[in-house]
Amino acid sequence: MKFSSKIERCSLSPMRKFAAVAERADERGLHIFRLNIGQPDLPTPDSFWERLRNFHQPVLSYSPSNGLPEYLDAVIHYYHGLGVDLSREQLLGTTGGSEALQMALSAILDEGDEIVIPEPFYPNYATMTNLTGARVRPITTCPEEGYRYAERERVEACINEHTRAIMITNPGNPTGCVINREELKLMLDIAKEHGLFLICDEVYREFVYNGERLMSALQFEGYEDKVIVIDSVSKRFSACGARVGALISRNRELLAHCLKWSQMRLSSPTVDQLAAASLYSFSKSYFDDMREEYMARRDTMIRGLRKIPGVVCEVPQGAFYVMAALPVDDAEKFQQWLLTEFDDHGDTLMFAAGRAFYATPGKGVNEVRMAYVLEREKLERAMEVLAIAIQKYNAR
Amino acid sequence: MKFSSKIERCSLSPMRKFAAVAERADERGLHIFRLNIGQPDLPTPDSFWERLRNFHQPVLSYSPSNGLPEYLDAVIHYYHGLGVDLSREQLLGTTGGSEALQMALSAILDEGDEIVIPEPFYPNYATMTNLTGARVRPITTCPEEGYRYAERERVEACINEHTRAIMITNPGNPTGCVINREELKLMLDIAKEHGLFLICDEVYREFVYNGERLMSALQFEGYEDKVIVIDSVSKRFSACGARVGALISRNRELLAHCLKWSQMRLSSPTVDQLAAASLYSFSKSYFDDMREEYMARRDTMIRGLRKIPGVVCEVPQGAFYVMAALPVDDAEKFQQWLLTEFDDHGDTLMFAAGRAFYATPGKGVNEVRMAYVLEREKLERAMEVLAIAIQKYNAR
Repeated sequence: MKFSSKIERCSLSPMRKFAAVAERADERGLHIFRLNIGQPDLPTPDSFWERLRNFHQPVLSYSPSNGLPEYLDAVIHYYHGLGVDLSREQLLGTTGGSEALQMALSAILDEGDEIVIPEPFYPNYATMTNLTGARVRPITTCPEEGYRYAERERVEACINEHTRAIMITNPGNPTGCVINREELKLMLDIAKEHGLFLICDEVYREFVYNGERLMSALQFEGYEDKVIVIDSVSKRFSACGARVGALISRNRELLAHCLKWSQMRLSSPTVDQLAAASLYSFSKSYFDDMREEYMARRDTMIRGLRKIPGVVCEVPQGAFYVMAALPVDDAEKFQQWLLTEFDDHGDTLMFAAGRAFYATPGKGVNEVRMAYVLEREKLERAMEVLAIAIQKYNAR
Repeated sequence: MKFSSKIERCSLSPMRKFAAVAERADERGLHIFRLNIGQPDLPTPDSFWERLRNFHQPVLSYSPSNGLPEYLDAVIHYYHGLGVDLSREQLLGTTGGSEALQMALSAILDEGDEIVIPEPFYPNYATMTNLTGARVRPITTCPEEGYRYAERERVEACINEHTRAIMITNPGNPTGCVINREELKLMLDIAKEHGLFLICDEVYREFVYNGERLMSALQFEGYEDKVIVIDSVSKRFSACGARVGALISRNRELLAHCLKWSQMRLSSPTVDQLAAASLYSFSKSYFDDMREEYMARRDTMIRGLRKIPGVVCEVPQGAFYVMAALPVDDAEKFQQWLLTEFDDHGDTLMFAAGRAFYATPGKGVNEVRMAYVLEREKLERAMEVLAIAIQKYNAR
C-alpha cells in the first residue's frame, strides 16, 4: 500500500517514542524518573475539578466550533490583564495548543513553502510542518550564545522566496531562552518587512525566572495582521490532559481560514473547556508560587548536572526544560540502554533525545532535553542516577 | 498575506456556516428547530457522568498518545461483542471520529491523489481531503435509486492511477443508505483488486431500522490490510461533546504512520476518554430503545415531509438524517431567509444546505439534510413550520 510522502517524512515524537520500551521497564518493576515529557506534577487547581463535577446538563453536546463563549471570555479577560484587548472574533478555542499550531500551519503553508524556526525547536513543529508539504528552515543556535537567535543578519539569511512564516517559542522549548522586548520587536520588524507571519508559541508565558514580565507579541502595535499567538492551559495551570488551547490573531482572513478547520473537526471537548474557563479565576499569588517552585527545581537540576564531568548546559531563563550535551556517543542509544540494561537500586530515567530538536542533519546527537517537572528531591536523585548511568554506560 | 492553496479550496461547514446568523435570530427571541447538526437530544448515559465525577487524581495529565488503556479495552470489548477480535495495537484512540478521519486521510493522501466517495457525502470529508492536497472523485447517486452505489462498473469508473482509497459511510450520512453484506463485500473486493484502502465510517452502526444487524467491514476475512474503520462514541451514546473516537485497522504500517499524528498532538482529553470507556458497560436494551425512538422520529419527519407539495425524499434505512429536495430555488438562500425574514408564531428552522454534500458542481442546490434528533412533537411542528415557510418563500 502506498502512503503519503508527507507522513513518510515525519517521525515519532522523541518525547514519546520510547513509551512502549518504558512500559516494559515499568512491568519489570523499575522506577523511571520521567523527564522526557513536560508534564507538570503540580496539582491542577480546584476550580477545574469543581466546574467539572458541577456540570449538570443531561446531554453532552458539541460546543461551538470556534470555542465555548465562557472559555473565550475567560481567555479575553486574562489577556486584558496583560494589557492586550481582544474580541471574541480574534480567537479560536482549540484542542490544546497543539491543534492551534496545526491550524495555523495548515492555513499558511503549501507544498514547497518554508517556515523559519530557530533550532533546537519543539520537534512536533517539524511533524506539523511536514504534514503541510512545507519544510523547516532552521536558524541554528548554540548553548554558548544562550541559544539566542534574534539578530537581523542571522534571521534574514534564512528567508527566501519560499518563506511564509517565522515561528518562535518564547520562553523557549527546549532551550529556556527568553527573548526581550527589543529582540521581539526585531523579529516583528523582520516579519513585517518580508510580508511573513510571526507565529509565537507563548504557552510557557508564566515560566520566566529573570524578574521581568514576558512581552507577548500581541502587545506591539503596527503588526496586527502578522502575529499569531499560540496559547494553552496545559502548562499554565498544570492541566495538560484537558486539551484546551487557543489561536489568537488580529488577522481576520487568517481566522476565517482557521475557522474552516475548526468546523471540520466540529468542536473541542465541551466539559474541559468549561472547566478550563474556571481556571482563569486564579488567585494573585498563583503564578508567583509556581514560578518560585520551578526556579528551585531548575537550580536543583542544574546543580546536579554541573557535578557530572563532561556535561555542557546553560542555565535556562524560562519554561521548564534544560537542554544539555551529555558525554555519550548517542543519546538515543543511551536512552534504550537506560530502559533495558541499567538501573541503580531500581531507578532509571527518561529524557527526550536531542536529534529531533534539530532540522540540521547530524546536530544534537549527544544532546538531551530534560523537563524539571518533578519535586526537588526526585530531581536530585534523578541527576545522581544520570551521573552513575553515564559512568557505567561509557565503561561498558 | 499569502495563505495555503489547500485551505483556500476548503469551505465552511454547511452545518455550521449559519451559526452566527442563528445566534442573532436567537437574540431576537426566535425559536429555532435545529435540524442542521446531528446532535442527538437523548440523555448521555449516567455511567459517563458518574465516571467524570469520580475522577480523583490531583494532576490532570496527558494520556498516552495512542489512547488510554481503559478506553482502548472498552472499545475492544465492544467489538468482541460484534464478532471482531482486536488487540490494543490495532486501534488508536482519537479526539472524536473527526480526528480519526483526518489521521487516516493524512497518512494516505498526497498532492494530486484522489479518493473515491459516493455523493452526497458528509461535507467535512471534502475539507479533510482538500487539506491533504488530494481531491474527492464522487460516485454520483440519487434518491430514486435509494442512493445505492455498490455496483462494480459504477465504482470502477471512478478509479484511475491517482486513486488511493475509497471512503464510505455505512449507514450513510446524509443519505441513510445502508449497504448489505454482498454490497460491502463487493466494495472490499474492488479495493483489494485495485490496491486501495477502504475507509468505512461506521459511527452510525447502531442506527439501522430494517431489522438486520449491520455488517462491519472488520468482520470480513482476507482484506485485513485494506480496511480502516472510523468509530466514535458521539452518536452511539449521545456524547458528541466528549470528542472521543477511534481509528481501527489491521494494517500495521498504516497504524505506525497514524501514531506519528497521535504523538504530534500529544493526547486526547484524559477525563473524557475514561468517562467514554464507562459508556461501554451499557445495558442490553440500550440500543433497542434508542433505535425504536429514532425510527419513530424518522417516520414522523417523513410523514411531515410527504404532506408538503413538491418535496422529494426517500425513507432512510439508517443513521438519523433525511436528505430531501425542496421546491425552492436555492436552499442556502432559503436558509438565510428563514433566519432573517421569516417566523411562524416565533418558530423557524435550520437544516444543512445540500450543495456542500456534492463534489459535482451544480448538484444539491435545492436539497437539504435534516437530522431527526428532536422529540416527535417538535419534529411534527418543525415540518409544519417548513411547509408554511416554503409557501411564503415562494409567494414573495
